[in-house]
Amino acid sequence: MTRRDLVEQIRKKSSFLCVGLDSDFQKLPQHILQEEDPIFAFNKQIIDATIHHAVAYKPNIAFYEANGVKGWESLAKTIDYLPDDVFVIADAKRGDIGNTSKMYAEAFFEQMNCDAITVAPYMGADSVKPFLSFQERWVILLALTSNPGSADFQNLYLKSEQQLYEKVLETSQQWGTTENLMYVVGATQAAALKKIRKIVPEHFLLVPGVGAQGGSLKEVAQNGLNKDCGLLVNSSRGIIYADNSKHFSEVAGKKAKEIQEEMSDYLNKYC
Amino acid sequence: MTRRDLVEQIRKKSSFLCVGLDSDFQKLPQHILQEEDPIFAFNKQIIDATIHHAVAYKPNIAFYEANGVKGWESLAKTIDYLPDDVFVIADAKRGDIGNTSKMYAEAFFEQMNCDAITVAPYMGADSVKPFLSFQERWVILLALTSNPGSADFQNLYLKSEQQLYEKVLETSQQWGTTENLMYVVGATQAAALKKIRKIVPEHFLLVPGVGAQGGSLKEVAQNGLNKDCGLLVNSSRGIIYADNSKHFSEVAGKKAKEIQEEMSDYLNKYC
Repeated sequence: MTRRDLVEQIRKKSSFLCVGLDSDFQKLPQHILQEEDPIFAFNKQIIDATIHHAVAYKPNIAFYEANGVKGWESLAKTIDYLPDDVFVIADAKRGDIGNTSKMYAEAFFEQMNCDAITVAPYMGADSVKPFLSFQERWVILLALTSNPGSADFQNLYLKSEQQLYEKVLETSQQWGTTENLMYVVGATQAAALKKIRKIVPEHFLLVPGVGAQGGSLKEVAQNGLNKDCGLLVNSSRGIIYADNSKHFSEVAGKKAKEIQEEMSDYLNKYC
Repeated sequence: MTRRDLVEQIRKKSSFLCVGLDSDFQKLPQHILQEEDPIFAFNKQIIDATIHHAVAYKPNIAFYEANGVKGWESLAKTIDYLPDDVFVIADAKRGDIGNTSKMYAEAFFEQMNCDAITVAPYMGADSVKPFLSFQERWVILLALTSNPGSADFQNLYLKSEQQLYEKVLETSQQWGTTENLMYVVGATQAAALKKIRKIVPEHFLLVPGVGAQGGSLKEVAQNGLNKDCGLLVNSSRGIIYADNSKHFSEVAGKKAKEIQEEMSDYLNKYC
């Protein structure tokens, strides 16, 4: 998907919501376990219930790999089921030496037909660039993540007085453009967003951590929106596990709608 | 596998060779493409031919994911086929927020029955620790990798005068022990190995980059061996693609034997 198409979808739905499909077997509603492929059955209902309120879906690959071959099948079916006009993010946090990253890129862009993949920056240029050579496909590079461990290395100060994540933002801009490179910035890092927007004013940011992890959508919108919106804010557990009964998808749809309505206000106000 | 068992295998085989199963469909010998599962058929022959010379096998997960569900099946069959007394490393370079890393750990340790997984450190403590809570399973944390991109971030100097990879070595020692934590250090970084051995004298190091990537086994052995050996040196392309004819496995076995014999000399000399 191109940036232009993505921005068009955001305007059309008045939403920059990404629904995280962290579909964990242990947490599925009881009644759905009788389905032949419970994870896919669950995802299908979540997608149907949220599709009018969300512009992106983000399956976290860990939750599928944990079920081995069967999980990989559920993932493939889920991605097939998603309509072409939503932005599909493989939250995979991959990254390896050049010839290996190329294989990952083929796996997620060609085999799985995802629009984007999250990539870890630790191995540098040749681990990221192979993902950037596919037409209309995106790298979403980890910059400042939402978890407590982000303080261990990402926040370290370099001799140049920058923090490591700032250096990652700066260096990686030489590898891609605003048309094929986004960054992960955790919603729990809203205070740093102002600083980040100075380094990458135009890029899209994928912002996880609203909901279960405690980030504030309002702060993220205030500090992160740009003229093209420039944000995809993800909620996983806060939507997909909002209810555990036979009505789970209805409740998920309601939650997604609430977030979308809040987003619509921010789009009108700040964008 | 425990450290004790691993060291015993190294002594028994006089080898610290790890064979990298980067089995790429595009590079398989023509005749094997007729097999029902060519990747598994290839791996099986490589394993049979090298098993007396290697103590560890390292499938790089990218090469399996690139074939989707079928690739995942080839991987599962390959790991099942490996005997219990070899050390099986999932070269996956995973790492995510805590609850997600736990899912990856279950995927590779419980579903796939690997002894170890490579993990990227960028997301910090809570992205690594979930992998360390499994009995007799190992994290192999990226420290200083073999690729050119390692210079982009890993080599950066911090305000504390350390390089980033040194800080990763220092900090992560608080998370695991010499019994469940190893580090990736590229063979192309042999000069840095002396410095690394001062920070982590006891830990095992997984050293890729000998062979196709140009690292020297001799330098790695001189600077890296410790009293328990403390090294697993990986060769992938230099062994598995040494020949592309019907005799590929025979040639692979010969290449592995050559390396093992060189390793045996170094074990006698330095260890």
